[in-house]
Amino acid sequence: MLNVALLGAGRIAGVHATAISTNPGSRLVAVSDINADAAAKLAAQYGAEARATEAILADASIDAVLIATSTDTHSDLIERATAAGKAVLCEKPVDLSLARAQACQKAVTSTGRPVMIGFNRRFDPNFAALKAALDKGEIGKAELLSITSFDPAPPPVAYIKVSGGLFRDMMIHDFDMANFIMDAPPVTVSAVGSSIVDPAIGAAGDVDTAVVTLTYADGRIAVIKNSRRAVYGYDQRVELLGSEGLLQAQNMLENTVVKSTIAGVTGAKPTYFFLERYMPAYSAEWAAFVAAVSAGDALPVTLSDGIAALAMAEAAAQSLQSGKPVAFANVLGT
Amino acid sequence: MLNVALLGAGRIAGVHATAISTNPGSRLVAVSDINADAAAKLAAQYGAEARATEAILADASIDAVLIATSTDTHSDLIERATAAGKAVLCEKPVDLSLARAQACQKAVTSTGRPVMIGFNRRFDPNFAALKAALDKGEIGKAELLSITSFDPAPPPVAYIKVSGGLFRDMMIHDFDMANFIMDAPPVTVSAVGSSIVDPAIGAAGDVDTAVVTLTYADGRIAVIKNSRRAVYGYDQRVELLGSEGLLQAQNMLENTVVKSTIAGVTGAKPTYFFLERYMPAYSAEWAAFVAAVSAGDALPVTLSDGIAALAMAEAAAQSLQSGKPVAFANVLGT
Amino acid sequence: MLNVALLGAGRIAGVHATAISTNPGSRLVAVSDINADAAAKLAAQYGAEARATEAILADASIDAVLIATSTDTHSDLIERATAAGKAVLCEKPVDLSLARAQACQKAVTSTGRPVMIGFNRRFDPNFAALKAALDKGEIGKAELLSITSFDPAPPPVAYIKVSGGLFRDMMIHDFDMANFIMDAPPVTVSAVGSSIVDPAIGAAGDVDTAVVTLTYADGRIAVIKNSRRAVYGYDQRVELLGSEGLLQAQNMLENTVVKSTIAGVTGAKPTYFFLERYMPAYSAEWAAFVAAVSAGDALPVTLSDGIAALAMAEAAAQSLQSGKPVAFANVLGT
Amino acid sequence: MLNVALLGAGRIAGVHATAISTNPGSRLVAVSDINADAAAKLAAQYGAEARATEAILADASIDAVLIATSTDTHSDLIERATAAGKAVLCEKPVDLSLARAQACQKAVTSTGRPVMIGFNRRFDPNFAALKAALDKGEIGKAELLSITSFDPAPPPVAYIKVSGGLFRDMMIHDFDMANFIMDAPPVTVSAVGSSIVDPAIGAAGDVDTAVVTLTYADGRIAVIKNSRRAVYGYDQRVELLGSEGLLQAQNMLENTVVKSTIAGVTGAKPTYFFLERYMPAYSAEWAAFVAAVSAGDALPVTLSDGIAALAMAEAAAQSLQSGKPVAFANVLGT
Repeated sequence: MLNVALLGAGRIAGVHATAISTNPGSRLVAVSDINADAAAKLAAQYGAEARATEAILADASIDAVLIATSTDTHSDLIERATAAGKAVLCEKPVDLSLARAQACQKAVTSTGRPVMIGFNRRFDPNFAALKAALDKGEIGKAELLSITSFDPAPPPVAYIKVSGGLFRDMMIHDFDMANFIMDAPPVTVSAVGSSIVDPAIGAAGDVDTAVVTLTYADGRIAVIKNSRRAVYGYDQRVELLGSEGLLQAQNMLENTVVKSTIAGVTGAKPTYFFLERYMPAYSAEWAAFVAAVSAGDALPVTLSDGIAALAMAEAAAQSLQSGKPVAFANVLGT
Repeated sequence: MLNVALLGAGRIAGVHATAISTNPGSRLVAVSDINADAAAKLAAQYGAEARATEAILADASIDAVLIATSTDTHSDLIERATAAGKAVLCEKPVDLSLARAQACQKAVTSTGRPVMIGFNRRFDPNFAALKAALDKGEIGKAELLSITSFDPAPPPVAYIKVSGGLFRDMMIHDFDMANFIMDAPPVTVSAVGSSIVDPAIGAAGDVDTAVVTLTYADGRIAVIKNSRRAVYGYDQRVELLGSEGLLQAQNMLENTVVKSTIAGVTGAKPTYFFLERYMPAYSAEWAAFVAAVSAGDALPVTLSDGIAALAMAEAAAQSLQSGKPVAFANVLGT
Repeated sequence: MLNVALLGAGRIAGVHATAISTNPGSRLVAVSDINADAAAKLAAQYGAEARATEAILADASIDAVLIATSTDTHSDLIERATAAGKAVLCEKPVDLSLARAQACQKAVTSTGRPVMIGFNRRFDPNFAALKAALDKGEIGKAELLSITSFDPAPPPVAYIKVSGGLFRDMMIHDFDMANFIMDAPPVTVSAVGSSIVDPAIGAAGDVDTAVVTLTYADGRIAVIKNSRRAVYGYDQRVELLGSEGLLQAQNMLENTVVKSTIAGVTGAKPTYFFLERYMPAYSAEWAAFVAAVSAGDALPVTLSDGIAALAMAEAAAQSLQSGKPVAFANVLGT
Repeated sequence: MLNVALLGAGRIAGVHATAISTNPGSRLVAVSDINADAAAKLAAQYGAEARATEAILADASIDAVLIATSTDTHSDLIERATAAGKAVLCEKPVDLSLARAQACQKAVTSTGRPVMIGFNRRFDPNFAALKAALDKGEIGKAELLSITSFDPAPPPVAYIKVSGGLFRDMMIHDFDMANFIMDAPPVTVSAVGSSIVDPAIGAAGDVDTAVVTLTYADGRIAVIKNSRRAVYGYDQRVELLGSEGLLQAQNMLENTVVKSTIAGVTGAKPTYFFLERYMPAYSAEWAAFVAAVSAGDALPVTLSDGIAALAMAEAAAQSLQSGKPVAFANVLGT
């Protein structure tokens, strides 16, 4: 039984608290947050204790921490928690600064503690089934990957300004999905983008619509499409052409009802929004963490994976600015 | 090259004229109709001659006739055409009277000429593919068949009155589909029905919504559902449960465009109406006729098939009236 | 907060225990079972106490009981629990004997306590959405209902023998679904059936494949199709033709992945089996019970609904035996 | 009635001969080909005459010519036919050389004769319905376009060598589709590509898998994906995200049969290959040409459209070689 503390008590922390509590191998024992009320409320709901982060890290009975605080605190908390001997599951992204994340990785490596980054979409039953089919050779060798990832509506511009930009905030999930499926780093990263959804996003220095093309050493190609607005809902699809076929992970729908009238044949919209769509993924992610940490096995998503995705976001941002493809190795510094 | 005359120059005759003309093995040489203008117009369009039916039947250079006249003339024309040595493709139904159709069959048998009844749906690419999959054993042994057959809108009540009723006019196609797939006559026929779409249809002595259940000697079951009104279009589906799976022939759609908006995910309606939906079936039906007649092979649909479907319609009408299942053998007189 | 005891500790009881525990308005306090070990194990898992049924019913602090024992104990436990002042949610069917169920209803009525029957499918998000669309008038007036309900594989013949037969054990869910959607009792019930899946089921006096047709006073028609075997999984669909359109609740699938290869375009199978497919329905059912009991509102499914479905099963069994339609009012005794 | 001559008697010429013959407003009167036998055979089949190209162009009774010869003869024949006063429908591409095509355009302009380029996909019922929905404002303003266009199998390397390369031979259809939907030229063209399907294609100096990204002046983006091999068939899809929704034109399927077994739920493959998939498009294209020429209206696809698509192919080839985006205006020379 893993004793777990949750750092952060916001919306996504609530999702993780449920996953921790319903997993038979873990127990939520403590919650911390800069907002003491929020910590107290979340702790009470799950029979845990609200404590200061320092006290949590100093408590030897706590085996693992789940970091669900704001991004600017991630690197620091990862370092402190691993130094205190805890296993860590940290929400994405590791950091907005690639250099800072790489420094964090060095510090973590010296502790030998396991750190997993919360790329929950790898655990989505649909994407996981697509990957499993690929790994079983059901479509031969991968050739051309397409990732479609549209949010229902853009966040407030105030959020955009501190988000690190579309590539680090939103497309980072898709960079990790590309890494998950292609199982290799790209050679080049090319980005185009615009603020066609909302000029205010452009005025804030970001884009709301973007396409990134990745090339790989063996000739494979990947394309990622992002938009901050799809009025019909949360559009999350992956499509992979292989030498012997095509795999498509399509949207989950709110229900299976189809209505035929003189207006056409109408079905339900995609499941809205990430909390609903990816709830099974959050549970499966946590279960994978508990299983690996309990068994002492390698984690399925590592800090290196978090850094790779961050470096791809960095490369995409550079490509957008320069108008030219960027060599990924130069950005990653390898 | 088969020289063909077309008896009838109405809407369905036009469909057949196209099929005859575009088939490389047949040539439309003559057209007759009680409306001389209609015959002349259709003949001109395809480079054929408008002639009297008598003259056509007397012309030894004409190999085959396609009968697309009103139902009450079918039996008579089949008898005269076969007596004159022609091969015949006759539109369904053979007749509204089972006894008359059976008498016609006797007359035809004595001539030895081939007569095919126009159950075009057997040649629909979807239903034909379903049957082929069944015959290849892809779902094991058939167990439970469902046929859904809804028209977009009811015909005028004036037509209803002379149509022979829903079972003989509309469901007769589905009875033949059941025979095509099950490849055996039913043991019992049970019908329920109502005029819920339009009470005027009930006042005319007919139903507009009906369900017929068929049982078979080996325990198989079939259900046929008919409605005279499906506002979303022409709904033509077949579904067959077998010991090793399920086969479904779904609707053809007007196009493949799907639109996702805040109102939902909307696709096109079913292809509207039988002329559009079944155009490939009419061509394939004619091609099968030409091929069989040219080769001297057995026809894929026979006069016996026409009589079997008519007898099932008769049985359904009796069952609806009596409120009880009807033994099919009693109706067929075998 | 509703204090709840669970009578029964088998597989379905485990499902209910989860629903009771995760609902914020209810708490599982006690479990009883004739198998003391099973009761103890289930109680421990959810922090409840294993107790004797008698002690549970005598405990005034317990507000409600959920009856998930074997069918032959249902009527008795419903009577005892309501006499003890408890609110009751009882698994379907009420009883295998219509007379016994009707006697139970009389006894319950005198206590004034609320009793809900566990027709969980009414709470399936898909069927519930279909009903909501109908109630909103989205397809006009209902005309022709089709329910397809196939199990993946037949149960052991030993189970068949004590099950009460396909109509009371399996189709009873579909009878209730018809009542839910049509909102009226049928006028006639006609059944056909066979043991084409497994002759041993026929030898045990039951059928494994059946079609029941229901007629309604206003001309509406319903068809229910059951098979004990659909090798591709649990097939649960509802389709309703109305005056202004068609509603279809289709199967839920295991995932959304589609694979295209030279063999065709292949998607996932239906969610397997009722525990997986209907898990959201069990939770929603319990939430509806808690909400209604807590507020003192009318229950969404009543003991009368349980009796109506049982009477339809009885009518179907009589129709199958006699080979004729059965007047429902005669069976229900109204 | 338009008197039409067909220049060329190969496979695609046969398709056009059917379209010309079945259109009520046109008549096929002559066929020419460097292979006299082929011309004679095709002419005989449709009751036309095999003649020399020169004689055809000199015959004042011929109103229009359809050019379906090899690409290297297109510009020359367009110039000669328009100089002879004919209306022209010419198969794509206009030419492999952009400069030559532009010179052809100048020559044609001086004749004032109408020239249409055979981008038949604009007339595909699905893509046409997508465009119509966009034009009606059904998804608001276009933002992000994706075109998926995969051939079932690569052509022989010998063909690849003379084809002009993937961009001019295959993706040129998709460039025109982008122009059709976006209704504006791109600002930049960026290409990546590889010969992952067959290294022999790479050795021949071409790619078999490519992704091209287009940006537009107003912030819109388009992505085109091409592969020479999709083993499951001919994959032709268009998807457009707009400010108020998404439009998808999906594949047409060989039939509508769905089979559910223990192996999954399997449907038919996409219609195979362009002759089958686009047959309705070829007929609609010809009908549009006949209608416009007969009425003296502007043609729906012009020589300028042919040149724009060719310039985009040229830009993509330059981008692939340089590894950088290319400014489209520089390539087009405007």
